This record gives sequence, structure tokens and C-alpha cells, in this order.
Amino acid sequence: MIEWGNTQADPDTFRAAMGRVVGSVTVVTTRHDDRPWGMTVSAFSGVCLEPPTVLVCVDHRSVTAADIRRESRFAVNLLSQDQVAVSRLCSRVGTVKFVDDHVVAGGELPDGVTSPVLRDSLVTFDCEVAEARPMGSHFVVFGRVRVVLAPRSRCPLLFGQGRYQRSVDIEEVPAMTEAGT
Amino acid sequence: MIEWGNTQADPDTFRAAMGRVVGSVTVVTTRHDDRPWGMTVSAFSGVCLEPPTVLVCVDHRSVTAADIRRESRFAVNLLSQDQVAVSRLCSRVGTVKFVDDHVVAGGELPDGVTSPVLRDSLVTFDCEVAEARPMGSHFVVFGRVRVVLAPRSRCPLLFGQGRYQRSVDIEEVPAMTEAGT
Repeated sequence: MIEWGNTQADPDTFRAAMGRVVGSVTVVTTRHDDRPWGMTVSAFSGVCLEPPTVLVCVDHRSVTAADIRRESRFAVNLLSQDQVAVSRLCSRVGTVKFVDDHVVAGGELPDGVTSPVLRDSLVTFDCEVAEARPMGSHFVVFGRVRVVLAPRSRCPLLFGQGRYQRSVDIEEVPAMTEAGT
Repeated sequence: MIEWGNTQADPDTFRAAMGRVVGSVTVVTTRHDDRPWGMTVSAFSGVCLEPPTVLVCVDHRSVTAADIRRESRFAVNLLSQDQVAVSRLCSRVGTVKFVDDHVVAGGELPDGVTSPVLRDSLVTFDCEVAEARPMGSHFVVFGRVRVVLAPRSRCPLLFGQGRYQRSVDIEEVPAMTEAGT
């Protein structure tokens, strides 16, 4: 018999289960007091190809949520392994998250980009808000992608199980089908 | 100067950029003709903790979308490395995706679980539909989590850049900040 343990769908159990999931580190950038601001989000998805649409979930009390609602623009930056420092900055709770030192200079950006772009990102999607709807403690923000920035291949920065991680092809490492704990 | 390449937000460019993103392999399971059915989805996110809520995006023409709309129930299975076979089955386009051979027997499930649960999953969330809304070619389905199944730690199965992958701690492998291509 399988020992299921605690199966209650309370916030703590749900949080612990979600903590096992490994995913790309994603920072949403906005303009705040006319400076670039970045916040790590735990939820990012592509939604559909036609029209190119993504979504992010942001705490409705966050600076980022207020910026997005005011400006109707934001960028989604999928981070690379060159960006651990900015990832740490943007994931601190309750601190200022200005990212002036980590963005591509305005003069270097292609025409049409309106939100801050983090340097060395795997991919950045510059987006216009298509819709933002409340869901519990968060806003689910749907973004119509206006500009795709993916200048070259980089290694994605992952996070899960409490740690920064990188991915390797399954064949590359001897099979380990159980985690250590 | 950065060479940005193609920055147009057309479906092909967007698809190519999304292809660089590495994420957990996620299968949505439903009941179809009273049998378990599973489809890999490219979009899964936790939304908020209170109440515990997740979302998935499913092509509105898919069997899975019809099942979800009819039953108002589905499960989200985050796959482990023990599940490459069922992952391949559930990601085939245009084929039947019955997963009878890959589910936990009903008698082994805890009380209250209503959707099929894939054996050896990292985590399964049994959900009730909170809301389903169309967005382009897809439905965005919000699920209220009713049961959390995460009996023990397993190694997550990842997919990205066209390949199945696994994650390792960043410290575990010498830094490689550039992919091969």
C-alpha cells in the first residue's frame, strides 16, 4: 500500500508540495518611480501562440502589481545562470527591488521595447496587459507579447526544492530516480 | 552592441523562445468514456496559497478540455523521472491517450480523490474547476486543489530545449554559463 501522508489541501501542505516542483526563475520587470524594478514570481506560463500570450501571477499587494495596473506594461525575464545575483535581489521579500544595475541600457534595446530588460536573460518577453484578474491573494496577469528578446542560447537558471539548480540531459548523468531525502 | 536577432512577436518566434524554457513535465488527467485519460500540458502554475489554487492551459479543441468542462474535475500530475514512458504517451498529438496502465488503482487512493492519479508522480493535485476562461486557442483552467498527493520525494522530470532533462544543484557541476549552441 502507498503511504500517502498528509493529503489535506491546506496552504502549508500545498506550499510544501509546490516546493518540490522545479522551474525556471522568472523576474517581472516594471517601471517604478521612473526606475526599473524587478520581482521574482513563482508562476509564469506561456498561454497560447495565437496571439502570443503569457501569464504571470503576482501578489496583489506587491509594488509590481501596482506598477502593472498603472502602466499596463511589463516584461517577463526568464533568467540564465549568469543572473543568480539579480535573482537573489528580486526575490527578497519586503525590500526595494530597483534593478538599475542589471538592465540593458535603453540605447541598446530594439525599437518598441517599453519595459526594463534584464541583462543576460535567457529570454525576455516585453508585454502589454491583455487582462488582469484577481484570484485569491494574487492577480493573474495575461500579457500580449509585443517583443521577443532571445539573442542567444544560454543555460536556464532553475529553482526548486529550496535550491538553485541547472538542468542536464537525462542521459548525461547516471539515472537517479530517487532524491536524497 | 547586442545583436538581438528577430524580435517580432509572431507565433514562430514566440514558440522558439518558449522552447528555450525548461520546466516540469505536467500531465492533466481526466475521466473519458469512464477511463483515465492523460494529456501533457505546456502550461502549469501555482496561483495562490489561499485558497490553494493552480492553473493549466489546455487547447480548447482537445479531448481534455471537453472532459474538464463536462466533469468540472481534473488532476494535475507533476512527473518524476520514473515516468518518461507515460510522458511520451501523453504528449503524442492526435492519438488516444488512455492511461489505464499508469494510474494508481482506485482502492489505493485516499478518500476524496475523484480524478485519475498517475503512479510514481512527484506531486498530484486533485482539483475542482474554479473557473475556465478562453484565451486565444486555449482555455485557462483554474483549479481549486482538493487533495494533495506527494507521498515521497522523487526526482522531477523536466523538459526543455527539445529534450528530457533532470536538475542538479548548481554547485554540483562545473559552471557552464553557455549552452553548446
